[in-house]
Amino acid sequence: MAPDPLGDQVSPSSGISAPGCVGILAGGGPLPAQVAQSVVAAGGSVFIIGFEGFAEPDVIAPWPHRFIRLAAAGEILSTLRQHNCRELVLIGPVRRPSFATLRPDAAGARILARIGRALFSGDDGLLGAIVRVLGEEGFVVRGAHDYLHASVGRRGVMGAVRPDSIAVSDITRGRNVVVAMGGLDIGQGCVVQDGLVLAVEAIEGTDEMLERAGRYRQDGRPGGVLVKMVKPGQERRADLPTIGPETVRRAARAGLRGIAFEAGATLLTDPRECVARADAAGLFLVGITTDGTVESLL
Amino acid sequence: MAPDPLGDQVSPSSGISAPGCVGILAGGGPLPAQVAQSVVAAGGSVFIIGFEGFAEPDVIAPWPHRFIRLAAAGEILSTLRQHNCRELVLIGPVRRPSFATLRPDAAGARILARIGRALFSGDDGLLGAIVRVLGEEGFVVRGAHDYLHASVGRRGVMGAVRPDSIAVSDITRGRNVVVAMGGLDIGQGCVVQDGLVLAVEAIEGTDEMLERAGRYRQDGRPGGVLVKMVKPGQERRADLPTIGPETVRRAARAGLRGIAFEAGATLLTDPRECVARADAAGLFLVGITTDGTVESLL
Repeated sequence: MAPDPLGDQVSPSSGISAPGCVGILAGGGPLPAQVAQSVVAAGGSVFIIGFEGFAEPDVIAPWPHRFIRLAAAGEILSTLRQHNCRELVLIGPVRRPSFATLRPDAAGARILARIGRALFSGDDGLLGAIVRVLGEEGFVVRGAHDYLHASVGRRGVMGAVRPDSIAVSDITRGRNVVVAMGGLDIGQGCVVQDGLVLAVEAIEGTDEMLERAGRYRQDGRPGGVLVKMVKPGQERRADLPTIGPETVRRAARAGLRGIAFEAGATLLTDPRECVARADAAGLFLVGITTDGTVESLL
Repeated sequence: MAPDPLGDQVSPSSGISAPGCVGILAGGGPLPAQVAQSVVAAGGSVFIIGFEGFAEPDVIAPWPHRFIRLAAAGEILSTLRQHNCRELVLIGPVRRPSFATLRPDAAGARILARIGRALFSGDDGLLGAIVRVLGEEGFVVRGAHDYLHASVGRRGVMGAVRPDSIAVSDITRGRNVVVAMGGLDIGQGCVVQDGLVLAVEAIEGTDEMLERAGRYRQDGRPGGVLVKMVKPGQERRADLPTIGPETVRRAARAGLRGIAFEAGATLLTDPRECVARADAAGLFLVGITTDGTVESLL
């Protein structure tokens, strides 16, 4: 029997030393606030840098924060130092920036030069380079999963629906596809329906892939499954796959029967609501691993 | 120096025995007529089965033909036998059928049962199964490339534009991606821009992938490249990658700088027009192979 995946959200996590002020570099979605809540519940304090155009004002408003442009690296670094943030967390989606709109400040231009070609070498290369530069600047970059234990998807079935044998076969095929793709630093997901790969995610993201998979689903056959996995060697401190209630809604709308995610390496933005929506729509949610049979995880 | 890739279209191909009546199972596009022309120029005769909803009336009208539903296998087989077609060619795109619209005739239902799960096991499995069933029915299935030597893309650069070193690097990365994907029976193509994989083709086809790659291209950097390769073990008698003037137009519209295709295993529907459009748009067209460096092919 798997442990209850819906544990206490604000439990301080092991491995994090006595918290000082944690700097949160916030993209979109609700997770920046959840990290802040977790840090404060553990006795620490936070300062949130909300990336303009990505961070949601309602989410970060309750916490000490400032909105700064993504490319204003000088302002970001000086703000973090001013607030004595030595530990940093990068959390929440940010679209890959375009050069034309970037307008880096002076420090941003120097950092772009240090990142260099990694800016165009796939998401992993880019995020890994950003984490490296922040380390060189004297910060300690933590993974959001260090603060959000209860939001990390675990092994096995969440909720009321279990995958049947065809779904297990599709999950296994999808896992093979995503692992192979991940080795080439491409995307984190695919959709498989009864053995047929309907869509593979590259730079367009999971939402657009799900929409496409819905258009190409094969009628007269069991619905497909979404499989999301971390890339081998992926910088887990910057870009974990994330599943939220909206993902479940989109998967249901695409005619899917369930979602398989990598256990221990996927953030669920709202585990209770994900399970409630999946149960209501008849979808399964299952945490899998890169090795072993999928059956053994159920 | 590569041989002229724009040779005589109607040359009879070696390896084809004294031609009787060749049955052409025709999907969309101009190639069914080109196969017919080649057979007739070599002294043979043809009968074309045009798949309803896919074969283009203007293309097959000049030749003896009948339009038949894809799933009316009994009528297809009896028509081929009635016209003494022992050799068959499958040519021109057909969308993967949906069960709901298939309405097989009695023979079609029996053949569907023989094809079985291959119908859902990826395009390769499906087409391979159809070729196998046609063989079991006593037909000899030829590849269209046996009749269209001059339309098979060759090694090296066609036209006036050559890929630069960044493009060569993108072609090499795209080749690695497509080969890895092909080993999993997924798609035949991808788009790479300056090291970044913009899009990977699954069931949606090249046109939709190109449109998506255009939306996600990164500005301020050299344009991307389209790479199309045959899957390892692909049934070459049923489904060779095809490039036509429309592909070149869509690639240019997506901001790409060129197209790399697998030499010896790609059909160019109209090589002269492909080159003319590519030259006019400043795109390169280059035939590559699965082994060796891309540079060595230029």
